[in-house]
Amino acid sequence: MQRIIIINGPNINLIGIREPGIYGNRTFDEYYNLLTSMFPDVKLEYYQTNIEGEIINKIQETGFSYDGIILNAGGYTHTSVAIGDAVKSVKTPVVEVHISNINAREDFRSRSMIAEGAKGVISGFGLESYRLALISLLT
Amino acid sequence: MQRIIIINGPNINLIGIREPGIYGNRTFDEYYNLLTSMFPDVKLEYYQTNIEGEIINKIQETGFSYDGIILNAGGYTHTSVAIGDAVKSVKTPVVEVHISNINAREDFRSRSMIAEGAKGVISGFGLESYRLALISLLT
Amino acid sequence: MQRIIIINGPNINLIGIREPGIYGNRTFDEYYNLLTSMFPDVKLEYYQTNIEGEIINKIQETGFSYDGIILNAGGYTHTSVAIGDAVKSVKTPVVEVHISNINAREDFRSRSMIAEGAKGVISGFGLESYRLALISLLT
Amino acid sequence: MQRIIIINGPNINLIGIREPGIYGNRTFDEYYNLLTSMFPDVKLEYYQTNIEGEIINKIQETGFSYDGIILNAGGYTHTSVAIGDAVKSVKTPVVEVHISNINAREDFRSRSMIAEGAKGVISGFGLESYRLALISLLT
Amino acid sequence: MQRIIIINGPNINLIGIREPGIYGNRTFDEYYNLLTSMFPDVKLEYYQTNIEGEIINKIQETGFSYDGIILNAGGYTHTSVAIGDAVKSVKTPVVEVHISNINAREDFRSRSMIAEGAKGVISGFGLESYRLALISLLT
Amino acid sequence: MQRIIIINGPNINLIGIREPGIYGNRTFDEYYNLLTSMFPDVKLEYYQTNIEGEIINKIQETGFSYDGIILNAGGYTHTSVAIGDAVKSVKTPVVEVHISNINAREDFRSRSMIAEGAKGVISGFGLESYRLALISLLT
Amino acid sequence: MQRIIIINGPNINLIGIREPGIYGNRTFDEYYNLLTSMFPDVKLEYYQTNIEGEIINKIQETGFSYDGIILNAGGYTHTSVAIGDAVKSVKTPVVEVHISNINAREDFRSRSMIAEGAKGVISGFGLESYRLALISLLT
Amino acid sequence: MQRIIIINGPNINLIGIREPGIYGNRTFDEYYNLLTSMFPDVKLEYYQTNIEGEIINKIQETGFSYDGIILNAGGYTHTSVAIGDAVKSVKTPVVEVHISNINAREDFRSRSMIAEGAKGVISGFGLESYRLALISLLT
Amino acid sequence: MQRIIIINGPNINLIGIREPGIYGNRTFDEYYNLLTSMFPDVKLEYYQTNIEGEIINKIQETGFSYDGIILNAGGYTHTSVAIGDAVKSVKTPVVEVHISNINAREDFRSRSMIAEGAKGVISGFGLESYRLALISLLT
Amino acid sequence: MQRIIIINGPNINLIGIREPGIYGNRTFDEYYNLLTSMFPDVKLEYYQTNIEGEIINKIQETGFSYDGIILNAGGYTHTSVAIGDAVKSVKTPVVEVHISNINAREDFRSRSMIAEGAKGVISGFGLESYRLALISLLT
Amino acid sequence: MQRIIIINGPNINLIGIREPGIYGNRTFDEYYNLLTSMFPDVKLEYYQTNIEGEIINKIQETGFSYDGIILNAGGYTHTSVAIGDAVKSVKTPVVEVHISNINAREDFRSRSMIAEGAKGVISGFGLESYRLALISLLT
Amino acid sequence: MQRIIIINGPNINLIGIREPGIYGNRTFDEYYNLLTSMFPDVKLEYYQTNIEGEIINKIQETGFSYDGIILNAGGYTHTSVAIGDAVKSVKTPVVEVHISNINAREDFRSRSMIAEGAKGVISGFGLESYRLALISLLT
Repeated sequence: MQRIIIINGPNINLIGIREPGIYGNRTFDEYYNLLTSMFPDVKLEYYQTNIEGEIINKIQETGFSYDGIILNAGGYTHTSVAIGDAVKSVKTPVVEVHISNINAREDFRSRSMIAEGAKGVISGFGLESYRLALISLLT
Repeated sequence: MQRIIIINGPNINLIGIREPGIYGNRTFDEYYNLLTSMFPDVKLEYYQTNIEGEIINKIQETGFSYDGIILNAGGYTHTSVAIGDAVKSVKTPVVEVHISNINAREDFRSRSMIAEGAKGVISGFGLESYRLALISLLT
Repeated sequence: MQRIIIINGPNINLIGIREPGIYGNRTFDEYYNLLTSMFPDVKLEYYQTNIEGEIINKIQETGFSYDGIILNAGGYTHTSVAIGDAVKSVKTPVVEVHISNINAREDFRSRSMIAEGAKGVISGFGLESYRLALISLLT
Repeated sequence: MQRIIIINGPNINLIGIREPGIYGNRTFDEYYNLLTSMFPDVKLEYYQTNIEGEIINKIQETGFSYDGIILNAGGYTHTSVAIGDAVKSVKTPVVEVHISNINAREDFRSRSMIAEGAKGVISGFGLESYRLALISLLT
Repeated sequence: MQRIIIINGPNINLIGIREPGIYGNRTFDEYYNLLTSMFPDVKLEYYQTNIEGEIINKIQETGFSYDGIILNAGGYTHTSVAIGDAVKSVKTPVVEVHISNINAREDFRSRSMIAEGAKGVISGFGLESYRLALISLLT
Repeated sequence: MQRIIIINGPNINLIGIREPGIYGNRTFDEYYNLLTSMFPDVKLEYYQTNIEGEIINKIQETGFSYDGIILNAGGYTHTSVAIGDAVKSVKTPVVEVHISNINAREDFRSRSMIAEGAKGVISGFGLESYRLALISLLT
Repeated sequence: MQRIIIINGPNINLIGIREPGIYGNRTFDEYYNLLTSMFPDVKLEYYQTNIEGEIINKIQETGFSYDGIILNAGGYTHTSVAIGDAVKSVKTPVVEVHISNINAREDFRSRSMIAEGAKGVISGFGLESYRLALISLLT
Repeated sequence: MQRIIIINGPNINLIGIREPGIYGNRTFDEYYNLLTSMFPDVKLEYYQTNIEGEIINKIQETGFSYDGIILNAGGYTHTSVAIGDAVKSVKTPVVEVHISNINAREDFRSRSMIAEGAKGVISGFGLESYRLALISLLT
Repeated sequence: MQRIIIINGPNINLIGIREPGIYGNRTFDEYYNLLTSMFPDVKLEYYQTNIEGEIINKIQETGFSYDGIILNAGGYTHTSVAIGDAVKSVKTPVVEVHISNINAREDFRSRSMIAEGAKGVISGFGLESYRLALISLLT
Repeated sequence: MQRIIIINGPNINLIGIREPGIYGNRTFDEYYNLLTSMFPDVKLEYYQTNIEGEIINKIQETGFSYDGIILNAGGYTHTSVAIGDAVKSVKTPVVEVHISNINAREDFRSRSMIAEGAKGVISGFGLESYRLALISLLT
Repeated sequence: MQRIIIINGPNINLIGIREPGIYGNRTFDEYYNLLTSMFPDVKLEYYQTNIEGEIINKIQETGFSYDGIILNAGGYTHTSVAIGDAVKSVKTPVVEVHISNINAREDFRSRSMIAEGAKGVISGFGLESYRLALISLLT
Repeated sequence: MQRIIIINGPNINLIGIREPGIYGNRTFDEYYNLLTSMFPDVKLEYYQTNIEGEIINKIQETGFSYDGIILNAGGYTHTSVAIGDAVKSVKTPVVEVHISNINAREDFRSRSMIAEGAKGVISGFGLESYRLALISLLT
């Protein structure tokens, strides 16, 4: 049975409340329940933090034993050399996801400091980006 | 029955031959056969051209009647205002795909002129990027 | 009797359908009929293509014998060194037109690679930009 | 009867004397006489100043009652946030004109701070740019 | 009794009329009356001009004898080295104010050429920015 | 009775000790005592942390129930997309304050990633910037 | 007997007519006849097109069986990621040539998107650049 | 007898008072008296204004009949396309002077928009820059 | 007896495991043991955290009483204004160290936000950088 | 009999030893002997120096009497305004050569300060670049 | 009796021969003779070299005992940090001169690496720039 | 016995005299004597030149037989592609040193063209940087 963790960064806990024009109005918890029911054969975990270094802690903790990391680093995506280094340091494949289409927003959001070490990037499908990432890891 | 077209841009016809370190060594035709057999309920089509304007022609042709366009514009991704305009002009949702992780390569490949009008972007999963795009459209 | 050609580039064939907030909802064909009826003494022609190189072909074909070229190169305006070179290579005066005010939109649309060789630029008057260009050539 | 004002900025009063290779050798007064005789049904006015703020004064004065403003802000075109704000603040449509083709000259002349609020831009037709602007406003 | 002058630059005289979505619809005169009644113990003056150099004249005139200058240089804020030099040349403390939040608008509005010599900057509180500036000078 | 929180970011706890030429030599605690005594009718709170994500935590905690947030994000002001996102995600108005005049210092300090979502910005009045911010929220 | 193809891009068919101050006044056909007579032991071919994608088609067609490609991509040299990708995708050595010295002209002409995959670059010797390229391939 | 005018721009009237560390503490009037007594055979005039457009007015007024213009455009030096155009429009030779060494100060002061049309530039010799300029015109 | 602390930032705890081609395969703990045995007369401490703000906490804690800080801020080196401010705020000399030669890697790694306040920088000697830093503080 | 000099700049004397992956392992002396034997009718000379100014000395010495200069300025190619000025100052045609393809290496190597005054540029053919340059001069 | 040295950099020895459209056709030696005869009371010396480091040698040699250095560093002006450092290291005042108006030429010539340490800059008066520099030092 | 050379570039011979606020007031010779006495078992040499190419000569001379090079290229550090190439061309390890902390000074000093090929960089410890470099080579 595969073991996969979703790591969500800053403000993702406000999805459903925050700027619904951009992020929709379903909360992440609702979606996560749906997702676990759709993939009964995957041992799925979920972790959220607003603290950059705690994302790194969690990547280091899971990055040598889990089968996959789905990472939405939120606003840190565009500025964090340190998370990018963590992604490159671990063995577990990391898939970068974004709820909104980051290439279609402000300029500073089109640069990802994390993508270089990632297996791939999925961006713009709303919360469905997570399901696509999960499928990509199960392949 | 849904009708979906894959539009491939320049040099994608050489996949499997061209720079295998970056693009792998399976040809697109082999992969396409596999894909059609995996989705028997989708009316899938495939078109390849090296000519920028012919990509626009095809987007205009299919963009008001098809249910989805999977677009890999190859090298034109990074320079074509005109394809980007075409994507924004049509009604059919367009999913942008890339075989390699464009954010992890040369700087000029991290800018997409097409993403703004696209539903979402999937990049870096090798040929499997197409399957993920197909799933995203069927949702 | 003066001989003048309108050369329209990519996606101009969708005017009236495409992004009406920016481009209005009259089709180019409707406008063109009006225009020919307004200038009965001009031998007016009209050509549209989505292919960059075919714009160059047409400029070369007409650029040594016609009395004027009205060029709306659409998205290629901002990227095509090659069309700019063609404009500089021919004898016939070329007037650059744009339906929308390109200086009031995205940054990348405020740079024209074509203007250097053009007689002048008319931008932002909707389809009426074509009539103004025609008048400028008849002077 | 329509009321239209031409507002000319710095150094336009030297046209005909100044750098004739770029601006020609007809004075603006000569051209203005011609123009008024060509449009007997328009109540045309003409104002010139070298002072940036006086251009703003005049835009504010006429921008709520006149039917059109033809603005050639000369060298202030490329630097004046304040004139650009004035153009956006008034109700009367403003057409930006340039005698020379500003896109074909020094780099700093290809940026217009005024175009964003303007109805359209006409550039490069010599003094005839004014006639084209006038026609565009009468439409 | 303290003597303080408000110097308003270009287009501030149109506040209440101009782009109400950004600047609100109260005129500056209405607000100024309110302000003088709120601070009966301050000798408050008000000056407006659209001319860059007249702002400098006024700063020089008042900048050695008044107790404070509240300066909203409007569009000149972002381009005027000369006003910035004037602010640094005088003895009276200058507080820079903006009605809208200049950091939340176009890029060119986030740079102030005046701030370096100013005592402080207050931006984004609508006309209330002036009251806050006045309080800051009375401290 | 209004409820307002001051959130101070990294190194603000050293004010009074740290670089007195820039930040003065009064400690924040001394000033905070003064401030609470000046506004007996406000329920004022104060929170300081050096950790970026804890600023986000606190904004999320207070941002739906308090009447105002006064935010001095210190060095994170210039780099944190994530705090900027948090400010935009909450309902409570946020006023950005700075002790020194950030526009008059190093270039990298003149860019604020937070201002876009803030109600307004007050910068350069020393610790008095907090009092002005408080007044702006009570209006 | 070696098989070598010359691929000429946009506007090279106008050499001898177009801007003679830069490109000289001998036509390419005249020069090509001379060249074939000078190298009787080489199976030389010549192809010209104004269409970017047709250059790619021809590179793909010849790039696995010919002994050399001499490529003058004209204005596409400076903008085409797609031709650059084609050059890197084939086995046949490609020599990039330019008639004028591209480093001595406008800034945008000093960047080549093609050079990275090319064997070498020859620029500035007029039509003689082709002869030097041919010699370099025969070595 | 030669006729030469000194045109001084914004804030030069404060020399001797303004930032003495940079500009010294002799007033311009004192220096000007000295200068006229040193060159009894020159018909010297002096004009100062803080208004950009009045500098242009004066250049136009004197620029076709005087023997020389000594121009210190102060802060407008670095931003005024319009003054630069005026300098290029007149016949009289213009010498650009600066009291401080503009190349040794802030970056934005090292760019002159005026130098292109000037005969020469003298910068950094304090008020003595004017005497050197005068000598250069008498040669 | 001197008291010196080594503060290591994100991912330094993976040294020996992470990207051995760049960082070598000795763990920091092994090296640290060696280091303490080599300097028996120094009271050496070691602290590692992945959290930016905890680095600041530790710098503040030790920066007024210790004799030296050896700081390897890892990926935060290139982005953290806040750590840079902390370094400038304390009294204890801080030596910046890097295991790899940051000037010989990606562009974004050649900029240090910390160096300005540091006593000096030692970069590229592998783990030996720490020993050199220690010697520099004992001098 | 034609007189031609090869001027080699810094580190070219190490060719064959230095970075063989980039520059090959034949020494320049070996190649030079070959070259002189291939062109018995040319009076060929060879000069190498690591000193920028000595390259200028040699260009000045030979640039009015020799029939051609083949210049490989090595690392000075990308930085030397002074060598570029020397090339433009002399009468003898100068051909710029590079052993490696400078456009396919680091960004700073794609800019040549010398090309503007050169007859042409040959780059990327290994030591054979010299032979091609020699042929180009003999034409 | 004052002792002053003129130090001329690369290619100044070709003045009179080199690009006469820019530099005129009088040689420096002719001008130097004139200059010495005009200032019989000055002990004037002259040194020219094409080698950057020899300019530094001469600045160091004379920079502690002479009364003035007139420095025309030619092409090194725009690139040499090292000469700029030398100028700042010595006691003797250095006046930077240029024969042509460097601000009116290519962009890279408008930046001087030397001006920061210089007493002043004189540019654009042809060889007369040297005479003005001499006068400025005698004051 | 190890053989190590210190190569000092331009203006280092003025250390102790030149800008003591930045470089201290001990001469290099005094320091060098101290250094040789501290390392009696090292065969230490010292070379200084102001000429860029002579630094390259010396690197080439010693770079295949010595055990270490300590290089302070002074102002050439930031501009010399050629010295950087020399460092990469030799076998002997090169340690780059700087007396002042180059990252804490002007922007142009934070870029090193030499670091890429160096073993490591030591910057900011005054003359002690040399001792640390020596220790790093003896390890």
